[in-house]
Amino acid sequence: MALVVDGKKLAQEILEEVRSEISAIKKKVRLASVLVGSNSASISFLKEKERACELAGIDFRLYRFPENITTSQLRARLAEIVHLPQNTGVILQLPLAEHLNTQYLLNAITPQKDVDCLSEGSLGAFIVGRHKILPPPVAALKFICEKFGITTIGKLTVVIGAGRLVGKPIAAWLMQQETNVVSLNEHTKNIGEFTRRADIIVSGVGQPHIIRPDMVREGVVVFDFGFSKQDEKIVGDVEFDEVSEKASLITPVPGGLGPLTVTFLVKNLLTLASTPKR
Amino acid sequence: MALVVDGKKLAQEILEEVRSEISAIKKKVRLASVLVGSNSASISFLKEKERACELAGIDFRLYRFPENITTSQLRARLAEIVHLPQNTGVILQLPLAEHLNTQYLLNAITPQKDVDCLSEGSLGAFIVGRHKILPPPVAALKFICEKFGITTIGKLTVVIGAGRLVGKPIAAWLMQQETNVVSLNEHTKNIGEFTRRADIIVSGVGQPHIIRPDMVREGVVVFDFGFSKQDEKIVGDVEFDEVSEKASLITPVPGGLGPLTVTFLVKNLLTLASTPKR
Repeated sequence: MALVVDGKKLAQEILEEVRSEISAIKKKVRLASVLVGSNSASISFLKEKERACELAGIDFRLYRFPENITTSQLRARLAEIVHLPQNTGVILQLPLAEHLNTQYLLNAITPQKDVDCLSEGSLGAFIVGRHKILPPPVAALKFICEKFGITTIGKLTVVIGAGRLVGKPIAAWLMQQETNVVSLNEHTKNIGEFTRRADIIVSGVGQPHIIRPDMVREGVVVFDFGFSKQDEKIVGDVEFDEVSEKASLITPVPGGLGPLTVTFLVKNLLTLASTPKR
Repeated sequence: MALVVDGKKLAQEILEEVRSEISAIKKKVRLASVLVGSNSASISFLKEKERACELAGIDFRLYRFPENITTSQLRARLAEIVHLPQNTGVILQLPLAEHLNTQYLLNAITPQKDVDCLSEGSLGAFIVGRHKILPPPVAALKFICEKFGITTIGKLTVVIGAGRLVGKPIAAWLMQQETNVVSLNEHTKNIGEFTRRADIIVSGVGQPHIIRPDMVREGVVVFDFGFSKQDEKIVGDVEFDEVSEKASLITPVPGGLGPLTVTFLVKNLLTLASTPKR
């Protein structure tokens, strides 16, 4: 039976530490969140971020724009939001509508305020291992590895999904850790062929139950970043009940990596806010 | 029997195209090369770069510094070299001595002149797919794929070696191409387990003959970035004679990816020099 990571409890502990550090630096800290349109999943993710900010004693300000805003209009508004000194950190809630140039818009957030670590400048510093912060999903994964003594060096890690938010940054970070990394995507025909050999599986696809018990080996470590709805229930990418019987450690959905990822977003805000400007 | 890529001939053709484009833009173009110490491999790589510049009608200027220069001294000199308008492109020949902070030094090269695409700024733009140039080894690989109709989407590509110059940028680029990527490193115990399933193998280790014929399947495509000396002969990572009998396409060493990589360094210089400043 696997150790099931209680992400909610760990998140709360870290947020309390952040709260006391925030009050120690005696500086007003505010997370500015930019939402375009009214995607219900985006709204509920932002609610989680607002709640985490509250727990950490951080102001939260939501900027909303209509779905039909153009890239150049939004880029101009983002630049204003980023340059306001009250906004110590800025996030642009993804995904954006098809007609918007996502990366160009993310690049409007300067690395000093880019708590999600998604701009070109932040990613460059991250990729060479010289950034002060990590992308929140990477920070959450690293935290669990350190907390529970999971070493990555020389291991075989299979990363399912190659998206901007999870798969790509996780794979890039694992390569820095001298792990053997297998990066799979939606074109992979036989995921099980790889996952059955894996010491560590990281999934960030958002399709219910693509990782079944026959696809993993005894003692595997499973990180589930998946998040989807099935029969009105929130589920991850992993068939939790059966896979957890074979795994040595597993993160549940909900209550696993989700709350920890939000927590490290907030912690990044503290790190950047307390670093003197270059 | 494999198609053997004649990198030398292809390189010459591309350099002649670059030569006519350079004369068309009517602008003096110069590659500034920075060499620290007197590593003989570094000196011979720089000679290759100088020769390619000559063929393309580009000035070449070598700046040499003693082995015992400090990071801050070298960073200051690099900044001067980069800011000279005559130097349209700047490279820092790697590897550097242990006591030097390689990435910090590479970051002194502004993206507009960073033809090797190794600074944080260049890598950030590359990683999100928004750069005007590609790291030269990536450009060489992409060129061969396009020239010989090799598609990467949905394929299984095994990348051996996770270094700064070859393995990391190649793996990052392949992930953008929706390939399934396996990144292996010096801690991998059983490389053959992965290479035997591979549609495409990319090796950038620099150890003679680590890829043997029993480790590949019929029809595989093999890219050999390896470069080492064995009995005074230059050899790649692949046992060329036997592996080429099974492969559908293979790059030899010498005369394969080496000349093409140098060529795309020179082509990057043209691309950056003919792009208006942002």
